[in-house]
Amino acid sequence: MQVDSHPFDAAIRLAPQGSNRFRGTTASAYANMVGPFGGITCAVLLQAVLTHEQRQGDPIAITVNFAAPIADGSFDIEAIPARTNRSTQHWVVQLEQQDAIAATATVALAVRRDTWGAPEAVPPSGIPPASTLARVPLSGVPAWVRSYDLRFAEVAVPAAFGGREQPHSRSEMWVRDEPPRPLDFPALAAICDSFFPRIFLRRRAFVPVGTVSLTTFFHADAAMLSRQSDRHVLGVARAMNFRNGFFDQSAEIWSDDGALLASSHQIVYYRE
Amino acid sequence: MQVDSHPFDAAIRLAPQGSNRFRGTTASAYANMVGPFGGITCAVLLQAVLTHEQRQGDPIAITVNFAAPIADGSFDIEAIPARTNRSTQHWVVQLEQQDAIAATATVALAVRRDTWGAPEAVPPSGIPPASTLARVPLSGVPAWVRSYDLRFAEVAVPAAFGGREQPHSRSEMWVRDEPPRPLDFPALAAICDSFFPRIFLRRRAFVPVGTVSLTTFFHADAAMLSRQSDRHVLGVARAMNFRNGFFDQSAEIWSDDGALLASSHQIVYYRE
Repeated sequence: MQVDSHPFDAAIRLAPQGSNRFRGTTASAYANMVGPFGGITCAVLLQAVLTHEQRQGDPIAITVNFAAPIADGSFDIEAIPARTNRSTQHWVVQLEQQDAIAATATVALAVRRDTWGAPEAVPPSGIPPASTLARVPLSGVPAWVRSYDLRFAEVAVPAAFGGREQPHSRSEMWVRDEPPRPLDFPALAAICDSFFPRIFLRRRAFVPVGTVSLTTFFHADAAMLSRQSDRHVLGVARAMNFRNGFFDQSAEIWSDDGALLASSHQIVYYRE
Repeated sequence: MQVDSHPFDAAIRLAPQGSNRFRGTTASAYANMVGPFGGITCAVLLQAVLTHEQRQGDPIAITVNFAAPIADGSFDIEAIPARTNRSTQHWVVQLEQQDAIAATATVALAVRRDTWGAPEAVPPSGIPPASTLARVPLSGVPAWVRSYDLRFAEVAVPAAFGGREQPHSRSEMWVRDEPPRPLDFPALAAICDSFFPRIFLRRRAFVPVGTVSLTTFFHADAAMLSRQSDRHVLGVARAMNFRNGFFDQSAEIWSDDGALLASSHQIVYYRE
């Protein structure tokens, strides 16, 4: 499938609306229970920066604050280059609907250089290849889950839900766009939010949740993403703490040859 | 010492300048090698929101992007309430000097509620009490290090530096404001950045570094911070990856009775 005709590209397509402004439309392929999947919102906010004529460099960090529900339909994005340095560029971005702010974001771009480097975290070991695992069941899932090929290494979520709490919320999964699409920065930003909320795993039950703030750091350069192409990447997610209506969730995305592509951290509202 | 007369409070003091605007001044007690300690910049950006007349709730998340060096002297902060919901409030904040943006930030506030909750991460074990450890040597350190009482559990940094790389960058330390000061949200935000950059530990050497983007999630409510008061908190920091001039650093701040107060993640530029 050509990149341009992929549903992901349709979902993040933006029409320039003059200086620093873009118009987009929510896509049914990435709908969540209410409004769009958070990952596609991250991707389209990043896309505004990446297609801006003043863009300089590739993504290092993005933070998205989900300020209000996003309604199905059109939205406007304003992307302002706040500061451009020799090797980094900082952006302030917001998404608006009906003249109200629905999401805010900051993006840092940079020109990467050859330097000393070293991995420190190690990828999960003993995870069976994606080809040997079943795709997550699609019965009853929101549309966005069908736009990914998710294969769980440890537990079939949400098949085994029974309301009995388990002592941890860690999970590992293989994930790629469905249909397959070569990995790039917007797709990686979206994949960082493709994990089921950790409270579902911990409590083995569905409760109302909503991400408040999500930060992703991009460890990979464009060449690494290009080498990964459209094969499954390996995702790991866990939480550290659930308290007073908020929990955190940290995720890592690894290439299928064991390199860290992105790490991502979010704080999520929950109700019970 | 009264809170109001503490150097930390002087460093984050802001003078209102009309709608959404505040003026502050860099403080010599929190100076770094060049410009202010990043943690005090986080604290003063947060303080602008917390002292804003439209503030609603307590901090859940803050992200600060360090867009340019901050010069010694006065600076202006603009804090805009982007969206106020029933239980959350989202802010867009920036710090300006000479009419240019030097830092951008987003802040999420929320009203915490009693809910089901559970810890998942566990605090480091076997760390000797702060009272049995020596304070980090202060010879040659930047001023901000003297404004903290840092006590390392594992390695004396930077005393044992010899340029020989070690296989990990993890460290644990006790930390409190010096002189002691009751913990609050701005102080906790600053403490989240009080770890030496992980590349110093990993490489056992100093290299030029600068935080690009820093996100802190506040797991504690005001009552927990109040109970912690002015005693040392326990910090843990580690990195996952060093590549192409950027590394990540994740930190946890634990109360001295083992509750997670904050988790913090930054991506840092390095040169060699």
